[in-house]
Amino acid sequence: MKLGVVILAAGKGTRMRSALPKILHPLAGRPLLQHVLDAAEALGAARICCVYGHGGDLVPKTLKDANCTWVEQSERLGTGHAVLQAMPSMAGMDRILVLYGDVPLIEPETLNRLVADSNGKALGLISMHLDDPSGYGRIVRDKRGHVLRIVEHKDASEAELGIQEINTGIIVADARRLGEWLTQIGNNNVQGEYYLTDVIGLATAQGIEVVTTHPEAPQEVAGVNDRLQLAELERYHQRRLAETLMLQGTTVLDPARLDIRGTLICERDVTLDVNLIVEGRVRLGANVRVGPNCLLKDCEIGAGSEVFANSIVECAHVGAGARIGPFARLRPEADIGDHCHIGNFVEVKKSRIGEGTKVNHLSYIGNAELGSRVNIGAGTITCNYDGANKHLTKIGDGAFIGSNTALVAPVEVGADATIGAGSVIAREAPAGQLSLTRAPQTTVKGWERPRKKK
Amino acid sequence: MKLGVVILAAGKGTRMRSALPKILHPLAGRPLLQHVLDAAEALGAARICCVYGHGGDLVPKTLKDANCTWVEQSERLGTGHAVLQAMPSMAGMDRILVLYGDVPLIEPETLNRLVADSNGKALGLISMHLDDPSGYGRIVRDKRGHVLRIVEHKDASEAELGIQEINTGIIVADARRLGEWLTQIGNNNVQGEYYLTDVIGLATAQGIEVVTTHPEAPQEVAGVNDRLQLAELERYHQRRLAETLMLQGTTVLDPARLDIRGTLICERDVTLDVNLIVEGRVRLGANVRVGPNCLLKDCEIGAGSEVFANSIVECAHVGAGARIGPFARLRPEADIGDHCHIGNFVEVKKSRIGEGTKVNHLSYIGNAELGSRVNIGAGTITCNYDGANKHLTKIGDGAFIGSNTALVAPVEVGADATIGAGSVIAREAPAGQLSLTRAPQTTVKGWERPRKKK
Amino acid sequence: MKLGVVILAAGKGTRMRSALPKILHPLAGRPLLQHVLDAAEALGAARICCVYGHGGDLVPKTLKDANCTWVEQSERLGTGHAVLQAMPSMAGMDRILVLYGDVPLIEPETLNRLVADSNGKALGLISMHLDDPSGYGRIVRDKRGHVLRIVEHKDASEAELGIQEINTGIIVADARRLGEWLTQIGNNNVQGEYYLTDVIGLATAQGIEVVTTHPEAPQEVAGVNDRLQLAELERYHQRRLAETLMLQGTTVLDPARLDIRGTLICERDVTLDVNLIVEGRVRLGANVRVGPNCLLKDCEIGAGSEVFANSIVECAHVGAGARIGPFARLRPEADIGDHCHIGNFVEVKKSRIGEGTKVNHLSYIGNAELGSRVNIGAGTITCNYDGANKHLTKIGDGAFIGSNTALVAPVEVGADATIGAGSVIAREAPAGQLSLTRAPQTTVKGWERPRKKK
Repeated sequence: MKLGVVILAAGKGTRMRSALPKILHPLAGRPLLQHVLDAAEALGAARICCVYGHGGDLVPKTLKDANCTWVEQSERLGTGHAVLQAMPSMAGMDRILVLYGDVPLIEPETLNRLVADSNGKALGLISMHLDDPSGYGRIVRDKRGHVLRIVEHKDASEAELGIQEINTGIIVADARRLGEWLTQIGNNNVQGEYYLTDVIGLATAQGIEVVTTHPEAPQEVAGVNDRLQLAELERYHQRRLAETLMLQGTTVLDPARLDIRGTLICERDVTLDVNLIVEGRVRLGANVRVGPNCLLKDCEIGAGSEVFANSIVECAHVGAGARIGPFARLRPEADIGDHCHIGNFVEVKKSRIGEGTKVNHLSYIGNAELGSRVNIGAGTITCNYDGANKHLTKIGDGAFIGSNTALVAPVEVGADATIGAGSVIAREAPAGQLSLTRAPQTTVKGWERPRKKK
Repeated sequence: MKLGVVILAAGKGTRMRSALPKILHPLAGRPLLQHVLDAAEALGAARICCVYGHGGDLVPKTLKDANCTWVEQSERLGTGHAVLQAMPSMAGMDRILVLYGDVPLIEPETLNRLVADSNGKALGLISMHLDDPSGYGRIVRDKRGHVLRIVEHKDASEAELGIQEINTGIIVADARRLGEWLTQIGNNNVQGEYYLTDVIGLATAQGIEVVTTHPEAPQEVAGVNDRLQLAELERYHQRRLAETLMLQGTTVLDPARLDIRGTLICERDVTLDVNLIVEGRVRLGANVRVGPNCLLKDCEIGAGSEVFANSIVECAHVGAGARIGPFARLRPEADIGDHCHIGNFVEVKKSRIGEGTKVNHLSYIGNAELGSRVNIGAGTITCNYDGANKHLTKIGDGAFIGSNTALVAPVEVGADATIGAGSVIAREAPAGQLSLTRAPQTTVKGWERPRKKK
Repeated sequence: MKLGVVILAAGKGTRMRSALPKILHPLAGRPLLQHVLDAAEALGAARICCVYGHGGDLVPKTLKDANCTWVEQSERLGTGHAVLQAMPSMAGMDRILVLYGDVPLIEPETLNRLVADSNGKALGLISMHLDDPSGYGRIVRDKRGHVLRIVEHKDASEAELGIQEINTGIIVADARRLGEWLTQIGNNNVQGEYYLTDVIGLATAQGIEVVTTHPEAPQEVAGVNDRLQLAELERYHQRRLAETLMLQGTTVLDPARLDIRGTLICERDVTLDVNLIVEGRVRLGANVRVGPNCLLKDCEIGAGSEVFANSIVECAHVGAGARIGPFARLRPEADIGDHCHIGNFVEVKKSRIGEGTKVNHLSYIGNAELGSRVNIGAGTITCNYDGANKHLTKIGDGAFIGSNTALVAPVEVGADATIGAGSVIAREAPAGQLSLTRAPQTTVKGWERPRKKK
């Protein structure tokens, strides 16, 4: 059975009040439409077609890596019309599943169930029971419980308004039949649009049984029409991610204050304090502890390391048993060795830091290679940029850099060298010896302090 | 029709357990009473009178800009007595609305409805239905549904306890009638107080119809008696502010983690990450992105600028396309040009920074004027204070300041000048040339490292 | 009456997916078992015995200060068997209360009620009514309402499944009777275990009345089986701590964003902004204000002081009227005097700072004694570590340290001394005079800037 998926993604999204097409707004760091594409991929769809409209080719350009066909719906004449535009690209498919670019959290499991439940049948749809079904199309069934038709809220009789089972719009249909039905849909309604929903009536009129499947949670079939709904789904999704992590063995101090905008892989007994934000791919080794208000992006942190409060690690690698922060910032290509200490108000960028080295206070280390057991004093700066090019600073194993030192790259400090505090080191500092720059300390006799001007 | 508003603000607030009068406790950054004053102003009240008591003249002093009359209720003999104290200042008013200084979230829309609903009637009140009305005065109605009287919880019969419609205490009345009723209220009750509520009984005894109006949400008429209730209203109010922002086109990553203590104006497609705090007046241009854990106070940030995690912007101005933070602090009178970069662990105070200038790391820029395209190296300090007076540092366009430089103000660095790393620049550095202070680098032969004392 | 407490703490906790025994996982910073031990202590238990199993002697080692007897249950044959292991250590006790190491939030008040309610009776238990009792053992009562027995969910009849009163497992029993019953319990069940629950059936078979007591909140008797439940109890507990603080007179901006992992004592009118984390013992004086995203650990902060956003105070003391942060870090043994200012990107460690002294920007002060009214310029570093030993920096009253100064300890700066910006002070700077190190400022003629390499 070849399954084709049509994703309707042409809605204007007026209520988002945004210059960005609605389906490109991010949820958990990915565009809404990307979530739907990922669900379709997870199903093993043989072909995926996105029908886009609003926003011109910004949508296909933004999602250019998606494994799908793009069809522009230049005139927006309704959902039935939109699916019809996609039918040529569905040639050869046996069944067609229709999804929505603004319904991002549909679970592949639910879709698999829909496909399985309606196996051998011409039409299946996802319906759901709501306590308050106002506004939704209701599923009208006959006495035996068979689906008869969908009645829109505004067209429903008093009795029909009492029906709590609603249509989600997600259907799977026999490809050939769907093609026929789509050409039979009329637009004789207030909006003058062709509604995909009408295929249900066409099917039942032909005596075809319509199979229904329910989602596990209502949020799976919830659409995003404004940013309030977007925030609601974001929170629901984040809560689910946190629960999954916790059940797998990660301690989350407050599941309501964890944001995963990408992938977080935790080995055993990781502890995440409040307000962590994860972006991209992050992997944390066993027993890693992450303090409050941290941001981790595309990084890997080794077993037993601790990231203290208010730290940022971005496109960096941290070894095992290291201590990072508080108030540390590791920038791209920072490669921190095992058992290193990177302390407060320290920035490290594009540098390799050897095992057990300490950069504890108020320093900037950029374009540098530090050996192991180096001690970098407070206020040390690698002057890596001369205004035109970046240069390398090399510091040997066991070196001790006195506080407030400027290392003017390219420069090398030998192993076990010592640099006197407040120096500007612009040429090689030999191994094992003390190097420094220092003007003599003088006291100005008779000098008087300035006085406050009136 | 001239509407007078009397705000009762004399309650002691014992359960707040505070030295501050209850009505001065802030909600969303403004005193509770200020919220009520603002609602009264929004109604277009012809005159507003606050009856205060507890806290002496701290209340009128704190809210000295309020457009209202202050009346001290020296003896606190009940709400009826309190309104009576205000009546002299209501001379000439046609109708009088009574509000409460500790009921801060009443909506002007609801009050307008109350005033309109009771138009032409002598008395209107706001009532509400509660699932659990315990403790509140119940609205007793006759068979035709007309209000008969208010019965306090403790005086209610079994049947009356079943009434779910309660009195909120907010009334609007014909000024002349109210004046008469207030003199007829007795204090023959357990507390020995004069209750404003009694005017309802007096009115219905005269055959006067009492009109009722309901609020949209129960929080509008909720009083603050302790800090738990204060926190509940704070959260409700913040949630409403977040929802309004979202519906207007701002993305809020987590509406439960946004605090607006003032006014936030966002142009289109602003994104606010978690834990933002806004104080005073803040205006964000189109496409501005604010990272997590930021604090913005009385500032304006231009279109397309980004404020990264853990940054503070306070009484400052940021141009368009700028990048601020993470871990940046802009202090009062920082004026950051378009496309500037202000990086981590950088503080800027009372300084103008020209277009495209970069202060990327660990610097303090105070009392300075920087041209455009300046590059400030890591660890640069403007020594603006000599212990008595502050002095100006001027840096010309295109200058390059080497790392760890101290600029001893008053001092000027010319356009396109270069300053060598680790310098102390205490007099003019000429344009286009390299200036520096540098002691020669020496290596101390035979020097030995200190050893660990036992 | 001598009350003995047996705490069952031998469960494996498989669903925690942790290398740490379940009962050692922290809630509000203390192991689950510690909470139960504290509740037992609060009851005035004459003797406490913990029955542990999983994790070997890690449990008694971790809680080595607990005032209890440790009994290892080497074979885990059920709760009845576990209590039996503890009975020898309960010799001399009149009554025995059985608690659970993974039910951390049981209130001493509830336990006192249980003990009092069942006074003079042989057996009392805590039961609770649940809307959804699925999975729990139900309390079966006779027509007069007397407890007959406990029926486990899986053994319950249709009618019994409808019972909403469930067994919590917490019982108090006459010590002698309990000893008898425990020897009579069988293990003729699917698991082949001895269930403590069976004592209820044994008691009622002897015509003994079983007294029931209810907890105030269901969370009191909730067990922790996975990290999701742990997080739920953590949040419930934190919410309760916040409510208690608020009712005592502390303003908490958002009770959902406060974490107290220890003890927080606030004098009157303290204000806590969002995302505060408290660890250990923290005491805040009257009118202290703590800004957002702060971490306070084992510290004391004097009346009227303000801690601004994103600051960390750890094992430190702050006087009255001080201003700390934003972005400040006070480390162990920082002792900050009254009216001091410690500003952004400043770290203070093991230092005494005199009254009114200012360290406003980008500095590291370690192993130092600063007098009063000292002004420390931006970028000042105390070079306290020579690579082997730590040395003291002393700065006299009224001294002014120019920016970017390195103070090479051991060193002393006299009272009212001034240090020129950018100096390296390695020997005494005399009182009242200007000392500095400064190479002359030079300008390099004809120097050209490097060009960007292609």
